Amino acid sequence: MQAVLDAGGEAVSRLMAQAELRMAELAAGHGPVLARYAGETIAAGGKRLRPLLVYLAAGVPPPETDALVRAAVAVELVHGATLVHDDVLDGSDLRRGRPTVVATGGRWMATATGDLLFARAFAELAHVSVAAVRVLARASTELARGELMQRRDAWKAEVSVERYLARCRLKTAVLFRAACELGALESASRASLAPFGEGIGLAFQILDDVLDVSGPPERTGKPRGADLLDGTVTLPLIIARSRDPELAALDLRTVRAPDDAARVCERIAATGAPGVARGRAMDLVAEAKSTLPSLPGRQRSALELVADGVVERYA
Amino acid sequence: MQAVLDAGGEAVSRLMAQAELRMAELAAGHGPVLARYAGETIAAGGKRLRPLLVYLAAGVPPPETDALVRAAVAVELVHGATLVHDDVLDGSDLRRGRPTVVATGGRWMATATGDLLFARAFAELAHVSVAAVRVLARASTELARGELMQRRDAWKAEVSVERYLARCRLKTAVLFRAACELGALESASRASLAPFGEGIGLAFQILDDVLDVSGPPERTGKPRGADLLDGTVTLPLIIARSRDPELAALDLRTVRAPDDAARVCERIAATGAPGVARGRAMDLVAEAKSTLPSLPGRQRSALELVADGVVERYA
Repeated sequence: MQAVLDAGGEAVSRLMAQAELRMAELAAGHGPVLARYAGETIAAGGKRLRPLLVYLAAGVPPPETDALVRAAVAVELVHGATLVHDDVLDGSDLRRGRPTVVATGGRWMATATGDLLFARAFAELAHVSVAAVRVLARASTELARGELMQRRDAWKAEVSVERYLARCRLKTAVLFRAACELGALESASRASLAPFGEGIGLAFQILDDVLDVSGPPERTGKPRGADLLDGTVTLPLIIARSRDPELAALDLRTVRAPDDAARVCERIAATGAPGVARGRAMDLVAEAKSTLPSLPGRQRSALELVADGVVERYA
Repeated sequence: MQAVLDAGGEAVSRLMAQAELRMAELAAGHGPVLARYAGETIAAGGKRLRPLLVYLAAGVPPPETDALVRAAVAVELVHGATLVHDDVLDGSDLRRGRPTVVATGGRWMATATGDLLFARAFAELAHVSVAAVRVLARASTELARGELMQRRDAWKAEVSVERYLARCRLKTAVLFRAACELGALESASRASLAPFGEGIGLAFQILDDVLDVSGPPERTGKPRGADLLDGTVTLPLIIARSRDPELAALDLRTVRAPDDAARVCERIAATGAPGVARGRAMDLVAEAKSTLPSLPGRQRSALELVADGVVERYA
């Protein structure tokens, strides 16, 4: 993402730093116990792709306003909240190579931390606008539906590509979309970047799912095949099942140990499915770029770089 | 609460009906699965004390505006969200005599339902004002802290009255306070009713805790001693421990079966502690009434009736 920061200019770097400061402040402000867990969740937050999108959607250079920083922080907090709640439900021990809140603090701590981060996200937007609240509330509703859909489809190997994509939209793409919408609300032109955000969000999730099958664990921060172990059926498996009858016949509930999962990952990779899925993600990125409205050259380039970055992870 | 509805006049009854309709709409609008569980949560919501407070805090008669209904709905949705998440964490099977979401739908369903209700609450306030969002976001943050504090203090029989009250404030009183603040935001005078809301919220929680020890299960909808079984130390027990050395020596972790809990409840009742705790709640109600600012007579009477109602449950 360094290229994106360069393209965004110094204003973007300053705004990213401000978002970090603000999140650290928020994590620290609600008692020592939550400070630890909320702080860990925020620190483990990864690449800050969503705040970056908020900024770039507002313009290049973006306006250096308090409202824009709060919008960026709000999206990242909702992202953090969903991660913590997902980990509770999955019983995950590791996220990006670090122990999860549920592993270190237990279910109560993780549920409360998620609820707190969620509440703070809306507290931030209370200083922005009701339009911003509307955007994030809608996205949050869909995230909850996505969480549920993933569970309902668990262990169902026969799930369709369409249903898989609908789940990715609810689980992931809506928050990328919200990031773009929130930025656009603070832009001069208010041009809609929602379809762009949704498209790259979908691509992002597909690539995440590809990396779960074929990504190097030392880079992704989690063991390969984690999705298989919790019954999440993703695009690489769906494609591989249509190519390999043995995979098509596999009962996912029999995949229990990390070694089993690693073997199934090898078998999926042998069908070439991860490459096909990655191609699908690249198509989505190209499509997303084509939906960009007329924008100033620097803003367009920066957004295109983010889009490319989404599918170039560990390529 | 019939007396309160009478005091509030027809406008309040119409507004209460509108809140019900709106909540039913919201529950139904997010797919059939969530419709069932969100609907059950909302239906199990009890007396709608918080929406009623929103309305009465706005004036008597209250302005019959869309904004006021949405504010009332938002508070009740946050209340519902916290109940569902609490049930997940407690593993409760029954709430007000009905099976909980976690009992019928499992942890995933309950977590997702809670997250959804929470998101919809803020979506409602996106049609009200940023000030309203600020009020509810602050309350939600404190609710999450309260949830956590309850857990941290679990099984600690030696917890102080002060700490118990601080927990009640975070767990319960802040939402009563928010209801009053939200109503006041839509009132002509904007007079602050926050201390009143907080006071009756505290009293409400204390009375809930009294009823858990001495309330008739057929009225409260849950077995006696539920708090004891999940390690929640409440005012009746704190007071009883200072009066009965055997209770003071009791290791709460040994109270495991409903029969044990019922016996401990008897013993607490024998010390007279529930009556003392109820007295404390009544004092808080009297204090809360004394904080009421200068208000039109009808509004003051209606709010006083609500306050009295809080401690007159099953008296």
